[in-house]
Amino acid sequence: MTNLSVSIERIKEDLLDLSEIGKNPRDRGIYRMAFSEADLAGKDWLQKRMKQAGLKTSRDGVANISGVLGDNLQEPRIVVGSHIDTVPCAGMLDGSLGVVVGLECIRILQEQKVSLVRPVELIAFSDEEGRFGGTVGSEAFVGELSRVRLETARDLDGVRLVDLLRKQGLSIDEALRAKRNADDLRAYLELHIEQGPVLDNSGLQVGIVDHITGLRSWSITLQGETNHAGTTPMEYRKDALLGLADFAHEIGRILEEVGTENSRATVGKAEILPGAPNSVPGRVDFSLDFRDPTTAILTELSTAFDRTLLAICRRRGLASEIHAQGEISPVAADQEIVNLLTSHAKSLNISHKVMPSGAAHDAQLLGKITSMGMIFVPSKGGLSHSPAEATDWEDIEAGANLLLHTLLELSSS
Amino acid sequence: MTNLSVSIERIKEDLLDLSEIGKNPRDRGIYRMAFSEADLAGKDWLQKRMKQAGLKTSRDGVANISGVLGDNLQEPRIVVGSHIDTVPCAGMLDGSLGVVVGLECIRILQEQKVSLVRPVELIAFSDEEGRFGGTVGSEAFVGELSRVRLETARDLDGVRLVDLLRKQGLSIDEALRAKRNADDLRAYLELHIEQGPVLDNSGLQVGIVDHITGLRSWSITLQGETNHAGTTPMEYRKDALLGLADFAHEIGRILEEVGTENSRATVGKAEILPGAPNSVPGRVDFSLDFRDPTTAILTELSTAFDRTLLAICRRRGLASEIHAQGEISPVAADQEIVNLLTSHAKSLNISHKVMPSGAAHDAQLLGKITSMGMIFVPSKGGLSHSPAEATDWEDIEAGANLLLHTLLELSSS
Repeated sequence: MTNLSVSIERIKEDLLDLSEIGKNPRDRGIYRMAFSEADLAGKDWLQKRMKQAGLKTSRDGVANISGVLGDNLQEPRIVVGSHIDTVPCAGMLDGSLGVVVGLECIRILQEQKVSLVRPVELIAFSDEEGRFGGTVGSEAFVGELSRVRLETARDLDGVRLVDLLRKQGLSIDEALRAKRNADDLRAYLELHIEQGPVLDNSGLQVGIVDHITGLRSWSITLQGETNHAGTTPMEYRKDALLGLADFAHEIGRILEEVGTENSRATVGKAEILPGAPNSVPGRVDFSLDFRDPTTAILTELSTAFDRTLLAICRRRGLASEIHAQGEISPVAADQEIVNLLTSHAKSLNISHKVMPSGAAHDAQLLGKITSMGMIFVPSKGGLSHSPAEATDWEDIEAGANLLLHTLLELSSS
Repeated sequence: MTNLSVSIERIKEDLLDLSEIGKNPRDRGIYRMAFSEADLAGKDWLQKRMKQAGLKTSRDGVANISGVLGDNLQEPRIVVGSHIDTVPCAGMLDGSLGVVVGLECIRILQEQKVSLVRPVELIAFSDEEGRFGGTVGSEAFVGELSRVRLETARDLDGVRLVDLLRKQGLSIDEALRAKRNADDLRAYLELHIEQGPVLDNSGLQVGIVDHITGLRSWSITLQGETNHAGTTPMEYRKDALLGLADFAHEIGRILEEVGTENSRATVGKAEILPGAPNSVPGRVDFSLDFRDPTTAILTELSTAFDRTLLAICRRRGLASEIHAQGEISPVAADQEIVNLLTSHAKSLNISHKVMPSGAAHDAQLLGKITSMGMIFVPSKGGLSHSPAEATDWEDIEAGANLLLHTLLELSSS
């Protein structure tokens, strides 16, 4: 079976087919917002393709689309998955690539009449891009979507999740029943574009993910005093923007002292008030997003950021408020699967490195209840969430073959 | 004549009277936007008061309101002035105080039948608060308002200055004739609130201005690269916000190295793009306002800021663009008048200090064509352009008496 390989032509054809659904006719971007017409059309397309490949398809209570190959349905199954919903003005890869490649791998297993010890299931999870502020499909799948959250979830326009489910004939009770038991699962595999520049810059074909990074998201206010920029001597000022500048300046030092090479911290958003060229800023509201693959480091970073803010406030006569806006725990990939992926990459002669994922994925949820592994393929220029996202077909083929052989081993032995 | 003094009761009455015009009935703020109904009503009120004080009143081509006392009209005159237009939600002092105090001083000269060697003229200049991006009244008075500017000036809502003048029966030709000859002027005196915290903090009653600070106003763009905050390692980033942070961080050093104790520099406004918590900022647009009372220092500061920006951009892989948005030249007060004010402050036993003005005033224009002097009275807490602006009546009285005695000496000997 070691000479099995995917058809990159069929992967290409499927990707291009799917990319027509939700395509903006004016620019090259795609938009399949979760639960939109385009998203539903994409799922219909997928279900049809799954059936053509001989899978038994179904839709669960949050509209996750599933296709199963194999007969021993009492055995814990191998799940391959990702998502086909997109951000606005998206490219054709992102989650769609993982679903299409997963389909091709299962199609090969089916065509080659591989004798499966346990079933293989392909899933396209609903709403990975966070229309409802999380990853609804994979949260429901692992049992993290509560009744309260289902009842109250609204998107930024105020549309209720429950109304969208109802439109598809689904109820809150059915959504809760989308939860799977850990015992029914053997492993979860996901192929995804890296969405960062590491593989592209190092010229490697695939990344084997060892950790998915955790994220803490803070919203910070520095309160000083608004004053006239001409008449207020420098030593009398309580300039909130200078407080932010001091803080942003310390980020590098804090990451060097407390973080790891996989730590990131970003001030991405800042509002300066009153925001007039001739006024000393009396208030600044800004975001701090920091990530690391281990909880211990995240906690140390929290302490360091907190301490630095307080010191700056003392020095500049400012008051600070920190609101924790969100927290995603880091999740480790299963070491056995990392080893399996690494050894197959070697025997398939695929250049690779073991690396963390800096972005969140459905795999982050799945990793909480089963053995999880992820394969990254390069993002040219590190770009994603853009019509410009691109990966060489050769690298997609390499990643797909790595998925195929790992899947083969996990399902047939 | 050394026992002459103003009536603080009449000053108070006039100020309170004038503060009713343009008062917002809901909060305590005042709004007399230049050339608005309230501004015109304020000017009518002033002209009536001038007449009651025995002055010969007139209105020039940009609606500056003038009242003259004295007969030797061929002699170069002493002008006392300020403005009565306000920013939105203003207090009752700012320019109005200088006009009302000037009126009281001239009233005393008139009532005491002081024999004037040269005329004394009180002027309320139009639009000091910059509805048309400058100080229209005093610019016209010194001949700096060009025909082109008059023809093209619009406020932020697109209203044309020329239409507002026409509504009052004034034309561009008349506006140009508002220009006075330097030979017709002996001196210009203005009393104003400090609009800064220096006098209030030092517990002094008046400030005697030696320089009005110059101002350079830049708009700066730093262009980097927008990236995913989770997947982009720190060393690959071109973070425009960190460029701003570095720059803001250097402001203190630059002022210490190149500036003086009277230098100020402020980043008052900044826009961060795209402005999402999980995106590395690819672009920042910000303002830099810097001031000093001497042109040489302003030029050295320009060079230092420029050099620092370039170094930061090299270090962080950013591109920068600087646009000079505006420049106001520093103006020195007349040394003879500074000496006169200082010696009268001493003999009147008024606590004082010689100090620069960090804000722009009509006096900055007048200083270009005649001997100029300014008196500051304290602003409590440094506040201005706010209903909370306040000065003790005792300090207003002290400043008014200093103006009275200086005016007396300049006009009667």
